Amino acid sequence: MFEESGEDLTPISRLGEFGLIEHMTKEFVVHNPAVLMGIGDDAAVYAVSDTTAHVVTTDLLVEGVHFDLRYVPMKHLGYKAVVVNLSDIYAMNAKPFGITVSVALSSRFTVEAMDEFYAGVQIACDHYDVDLLGGDTSSSRTGMLVSVTAIGSANKSDIVYRSGANEHDLLCVSGDLGAAYAGLQVLEREKEVYLKNPALQPDLVGRDYVVGRQLKPEARGDIIRILREHGVKPSAMIDVSDGLASDLLHICKKSKKGATIYEDKLPIDHEVLLVAEDMKIASLAMALNGGEDYELLFTVPLEFYDKVKALKGITIIGHIVEEIAGVNLITANGSMVAVQAQGWNHFKD
Amino acid sequence: MFEESGEDLTPISRLGEFGLIEHMTKEFVVHNPAVLMGIGDDAAVYAVSDTTAHVVTTDLLVEGVHFDLRYVPMKHLGYKAVVVNLSDIYAMNAKPFGITVSVALSSRFTVEAMDEFYAGVQIACDHYDVDLLGGDTSSSRTGMLVSVTAIGSANKSDIVYRSGANEHDLLCVSGDLGAAYAGLQVLEREKEVYLKNPALQPDLVGRDYVVGRQLKPEARGDIIRILREHGVKPSAMIDVSDGLASDLLHICKKSKKGATIYEDKLPIDHEVLLVAEDMKIASLAMALNGGEDYELLFTVPLEFYDKVKALKGITIIGHIVEEIAGVNLITANGSMVAVQAQGWNHFKD
Repeated sequence: MFEESGEDLTPISRLGEFGLIEHMTKEFVVHNPAVLMGIGDDAAVYAVSDTTAHVVTTDLLVEGVHFDLRYVPMKHLGYKAVVVNLSDIYAMNAKPFGITVSVALSSRFTVEAMDEFYAGVQIACDHYDVDLLGGDTSSSRTGMLVSVTAIGSANKSDIVYRSGANEHDLLCVSGDLGAAYAGLQVLEREKEVYLKNPALQPDLVGRDYVVGRQLKPEARGDIIRILREHGVKPSAMIDVSDGLASDLLHICKKSKKGATIYEDKLPIDHEVLLVAEDMKIASLAMALNGGEDYELLFTVPLEFYDKVKALKGITIIGHIVEEIAGVNLITANGSMVAVQAQGWNHFKD
Repeated sequence: MFEESGEDLTPISRLGEFGLIEHMTKEFVVHNPAVLMGIGDDAAVYAVSDTTAHVVTTDLLVEGVHFDLRYVPMKHLGYKAVVVNLSDIYAMNAKPFGITVSVALSSRFTVEAMDEFYAGVQIACDHYDVDLLGGDTSSSRTGMLVSVTAIGSANKSDIVYRSGANEHDLLCVSGDLGAAYAGLQVLEREKEVYLKNPALQPDLVGRDYVVGRQLKPEARGDIIRILREHGVKPSAMIDVSDGLASDLLHICKKSKKGATIYEDKLPIDHEVLLVAEDMKIASLAMALNGGEDYELLFTVPLEFYDKVKALKGITIIGHIVEEIAGVNLITANGSMVAVQAQGWNHFKD
């Protein structure tokens, strides 16, 4: 009781987010044989019958770390808080059915603001056909924090892990990359303009797509359905939340494989190129390290090449190679560079 | 974007915690026929097969609102954060099997502190035979916040809701009441002493039981097992987290019944009486409104009187009456007073 902090203590920033989770959970042993996957994928997996498994995932969103209420409308925040969790469920090739939503709030928040937030949660529930199963509310000393847990269901045999990629598999990604990050840059710039001169209106003309990708991402349940309808089962899958580079490295590490991806194959929207030019940021960096795209990155056996090639909204960006070859990007001019993670480390902010 | 707050906005304190949840979720409709109970009980319930249901619950613990790290050791906090959720699972007459634990932390926290926290989580997992299925970590601008979700399983027909109490049912409670609150008072007093004079050591002699009840509560899975072994199925159940008064009112409201409880039947530990005397707080108020006891309050049909009477650790404190008669306490001197909720309202702090 009333202990003073000693010397030789380690700041959490030294481990970073992934390091912290890995460090903290390495001693945990699984008690229940029904648990097929504990920590270490987009979601945990546990059997609920001989044929059916459930998956569960959880995410925190903290004001000032993950969102800025100076430009994020409450309704969008509610929607996004749900979507980012559903994305993890889809990334297991499962279908989400329920969520819990907990919120901590400082006294500056009003009932009307919370009505907006829950309206966004409800729109997401209706759109994705999931049920709000519970939640908790509390006051906080500063700001707002949202904690969402999502649960989904799948046939046991349909679950796709990060670890299933095989040599020669095709690397595929849904939608396009870097737009959410580009949208964030636009919003941050307009915020600065506004803070300097509140009379100026934000200029988002021609940036609707990237701003929308930042404020109102979607989880790609449609891709999961399309793949199933066409009889394509991914061998490995992850959602692109931390950036293509970071998430590709997760697949490679878990699968004990390398990968080669091609710069000129990366799907990048025209608006991202405009923002990149505007902001003097390489569009490649946005696509590789931007994060928050909530697209699906997955591998499929080579035999599915023709099928996948024909599917709208899916791009083949490379292939899986042996582990020793590493994870590399072939640039547009033909040189090879190692892919490195530059995902968020909240604890270094 | 960049909207200013308007006039006529409603502070959240006007609704309080239960009011906020009720207000925010009243528009939600359940999509999935597997959901047997959404919001409105200790946990949500959804069918996972013809015979089996799962239950899910979630709780936030916020530094400065729910815990004070000046006297709560990190390991105890980790343990308690798990236990308070498991208590909700048991209150549905289900068995918990998995949890997720998310933590937001300011930069003042060290890896060593988090090691202690997760050691507490792990001890709870081992003790209650549940698995850590996932979690998230994030930085926060101030302080620490813990969000835990717990999932449990039961035969569909074994689930017990708050709404099942019938007239003439016996009202029973496990363990004793008011001790966690008494422990909190002792810890708060010693904190004040320490803050005034850090050289003084805290005096907790003879207060081990109540301090333990505050710092290291247990979830009453043992009571669930004992009742099952003796063939006693409660008709309604809730865990005593907000205080006997508040939680009894929940059962009565959901069951559309009244209740009569007897002051001289309330189980109150000797140490609670000592603290009450010491602090000049009525022990009855501690037992009725203290909260955080994490005991089970349940009703059983009158036919189980002999069985329940013989069970150690369970006390019959009254019975269910018709709704019109209200919820009343018969005091030791024979007078009748209406039971009123004085549970926490975080938003009024």
